[in-house]
Amino acid sequence: MHILMDDRGKKYMVADKEFHTDYGFITEKDIVGSSPGDILKTHLDREFKVIKPNVNDYIELMERKCNIILPKDIGIITAKTGLGSGFKVLDAGTGAGATALHFGNIVGNDGKVYSYEIREDFAEIAERNIKGFELDNVEIKCKDVTEGIDEDNLDLVFLDLPKPWDVGEFAKKSLKVGGYIATYTPFIEQVQILQRVLKKIGFSEVESFECTLRGIEVTNKGTRPKTRMAGHTGYLTFGRKL
Amino acid sequence: MHILMDDRGKKYMVADKEFHTDYGFITEKDIVGSSPGDILKTHLDREFKVIKPNVNDYIELMERKCNIILPKDIGIITAKTGLGSGFKVLDAGTGAGATALHFGNIVGNDGKVYSYEIREDFAEIAERNIKGFELDNVEIKCKDVTEGIDEDNLDLVFLDLPKPWDVGEFAKKSLKVGGYIATYTPFIEQVQILQRVLKKIGFSEVESFECTLRGIEVTNKGTRPKTRMAGHTGYLTFGRKL
Amino acid sequence: MHILMDDRGKKYMVADKEFHTDYGFITEKDIVGSSPGDILKTHLDREFKVIKPNVNDYIELMERKCNIILPKDIGIITAKTGLGSGFKVLDAGTGAGATALHFGNIVGNDGKVYSYEIREDFAEIAERNIKGFELDNVEIKCKDVTEGIDEDNLDLVFLDLPKPWDVGEFAKKSLKVGGYIATYTPFIEQVQILQRVLKKIGFSEVESFECTLRGIEVTNKGTRPKTRMAGHTGYLTFGRKL
Amino acid sequence: MHILMDDRGKKYMVADKEFHTDYGFITEKDIVGSSPGDILKTHLDREFKVIKPNVNDYIELMERKCNIILPKDIGIITAKTGLGSGFKVLDAGTGAGATALHFGNIVGNDGKVYSYEIREDFAEIAERNIKGFELDNVEIKCKDVTEGIDEDNLDLVFLDLPKPWDVGEFAKKSLKVGGYIATYTPFIEQVQILQRVLKKIGFSEVESFECTLRGIEVTNKGTRPKTRMAGHTGYLTFGRKL
Repeated sequence: MHILMDDRGKKYMVADKEFHTDYGFITEKDIVGSSPGDILKTHLDREFKVIKPNVNDYIELMERKCNIILPKDIGIITAKTGLGSGFKVLDAGTGAGATALHFGNIVGNDGKVYSYEIREDFAEIAERNIKGFELDNVEIKCKDVTEGIDEDNLDLVFLDLPKPWDVGEFAKKSLKVGGYIATYTPFIEQVQILQRVLKKIGFSEVESFECTLRGIEVTNKGTRPKTRMAGHTGYLTFGRKL
Repeated sequence: MHILMDDRGKKYMVADKEFHTDYGFITEKDIVGSSPGDILKTHLDREFKVIKPNVNDYIELMERKCNIILPKDIGIITAKTGLGSGFKVLDAGTGAGATALHFGNIVGNDGKVYSYEIREDFAEIAERNIKGFELDNVEIKCKDVTEGIDEDNLDLVFLDLPKPWDVGEFAKKSLKVGGYIATYTPFIEQVQILQRVLKKIGFSEVESFECTLRGIEVTNKGTRPKTRMAGHTGYLTFGRKL
Repeated sequence: MHILMDDRGKKYMVADKEFHTDYGFITEKDIVGSSPGDILKTHLDREFKVIKPNVNDYIELMERKCNIILPKDIGIITAKTGLGSGFKVLDAGTGAGATALHFGNIVGNDGKVYSYEIREDFAEIAERNIKGFELDNVEIKCKDVTEGIDEDNLDLVFLDLPKPWDVGEFAKKSLKVGGYIATYTPFIEQVQILQRVLKKIGFSEVESFECTLRGIEVTNKGTRPKTRMAGHTGYLTFGRKL
Repeated sequence: MHILMDDRGKKYMVADKEFHTDYGFITEKDIVGSSPGDILKTHLDREFKVIKPNVNDYIELMERKCNIILPKDIGIITAKTGLGSGFKVLDAGTGAGATALHFGNIVGNDGKVYSYEIREDFAEIAERNIKGFELDNVEIKCKDVTEGIDEDNLDLVFLDLPKPWDVGEFAKKSLKVGGYIATYTPFIEQVQILQRVLKKIGFSEVESFECTLRGIEVTNKGTRPKTRMAGHTGYLTFGRKL
């Protein structure tokens, strides 16, 4: 998978085959042999720059049929749980695979991401998306995670589900000592149940947060926070097996 | 390095040698052979649980002589830049090494973190902290990053410096196409200069943000955001080499 | 001025004369003699409820050709300065008169609002808007406030101007001891100048703020903060003559 | 009641009688005859400045035995409901009288505030506080507002109570058409009940908010939001009788 950018700054996700645009086509050979920084030319002599494929670019361009979690929330999850290279992660529900891609990108070849999705159509989309980003360490499973977790010795169980508490006991069993459960839920009622259930199951360090990210605008007229901002995305709840 | 937790929930960072506490001592042999989940006993029969060493635990317990960047801000930096396993990162100034530890934890054995610190005393503390967390992929350099960057083909240049714009040109040269510069600065005047300089140097996607994280409290009395919250830590500014 | 509401909840601002709608007309006599809570009928027998005229309803329905300051920011200004009945206020620039209306509504018959507007067209609109709300205590002046303030013994000088610092000295002179200057400015650069200039002129308790108001949504699906929210409107800066 | 300020900027609330300080005393005659801006001297020749008594100064200096609502929240309440001179307000529970003072300050001689407090000790403190600020338009009633509201034709019913919904029906009956109920509650569970009950009772425009106020710091080192900030005070819920 390659990201090409035209002279208008528009980005394209390109597979290892001939690439056609309104500026002409680029040959498969040129695409396959390219590396970040190269300039590729179409048969009409228009230039496209090869840029390093980035997980956010990819997620923005990939096939999606559902809402995805924003990078700000994924960043809080990874930083709070100390996610790193070599970690073993369970992710559910997969959706289009955005969190699985982020986790796979971080845990690397020494790590592994198991991503459970109950809907077959979503699992198929996610499968294609993961393959497209050339991650070998993500396994999409078309399974209902509320019926159990096959894996053990996990570092992180991340749940983006309507009733993540149903997975609490399974998560507890499958995690390493020191590992984390993390959930993303839009409603405060879900946070209330999670706080109660996770503590009851025996998780430690149970905490919930909301993260707000606000852009700052610097123009000739002056500097100010951006008017446009999401007032809310979802609450993040964490628990730790200690 | 091991993290032990006593029955009061207090955590200890323990090296591969005999460990003494007010509850008695644990033998070097027991410490060295332990793995997460094990219960170790002192000669007074008090129990300590071995927990998986986590980068945040470690940073909390390690030696620090300066302010460190909070996980929330590190999370935004890693998620926005798509940092992953195998990436090559330049980090400056190192300080006690908190960001170097987070980056090293993520880029793993296939990646590398070069961390520049101008003050020798800080570089030595950071060196010890990195060694203590057993990361082989972080190199602390006692150098002034404003005089140049030795490395090239970098994925991320992260700067926690008073005048990060002084490193803009070097960062631009040392980054891969598609790579990011990211800066952390407490003051809006720094954001204003960064926005101007990074654009002038030719960085794309220049954006600045502030991230707010607020805890949610669920008790018997009711649910509410926590009163205690940091109104501000630092602004994050990003630029991309395209 | 009366506010009528139809059975769809739509509100209308109605003067003391015959009122025509797509539901038929209501006679002048009915309008003039009405009081809040009355039901007026059109000649087609459609019902309109008379509701107590509220300054926010009025501002929403009145003629505007420029941006207006939101109630949240007006609320912070009035609460921070302790504005009350009987106070003497200077307001500039008037714009469509929204802040003058809010201030006039609060200071009442024992108080007075002088509102300076440099543009004749805005001053005329504001004049009509003030008259429409039947406030006798607001005087619109088509004058450049940066050339001086005619009044003295003021409790509050409120400035919604690009360069409010130009009025600092005049404000200082015209205020009572204990009175406040308050400014609304979109950009942080304006705050920086204001803080410096107001302190230099001798104002005490110089402080700047930003106010964020977020709606909370309670539906059958659950409770959550609203996604839609303004990330920024303006900074409020205060100084006090002591 | 007078506010005097010494040369260190410290403020004192002073009644119409001889005033003793560590800088000496000021005679009753001097105090009684003073007006804002005057300089009064003690018998030791130390100077005190007379400043215009402000409702916030007063609340800060007055006797309090309970938490009070911050000006930011009072500002949102007054601005959202369009509170003005001449309005009739019911306030409960009174506490030390801070909201009653703010409302009384705004509604003036043509308006009236009835403030219900169930605890006799609080009612007495509030009574003294109101008298001290020389407001003739505030009546403290030592009554349980959940048993009924004596007044009618009200513009605003403000409730700072654990279960404000118990007063919903009484509020509805006592308000003018167009008038508002407003509540201040720390917990989201209270907001959930209020939203449901107020809608059921027939209030319109039922909305809930949280207001965040953040200070901006401009120093020689630079400009930045203040670190110190309250993450939460209370939720504000409004309903309107239409």
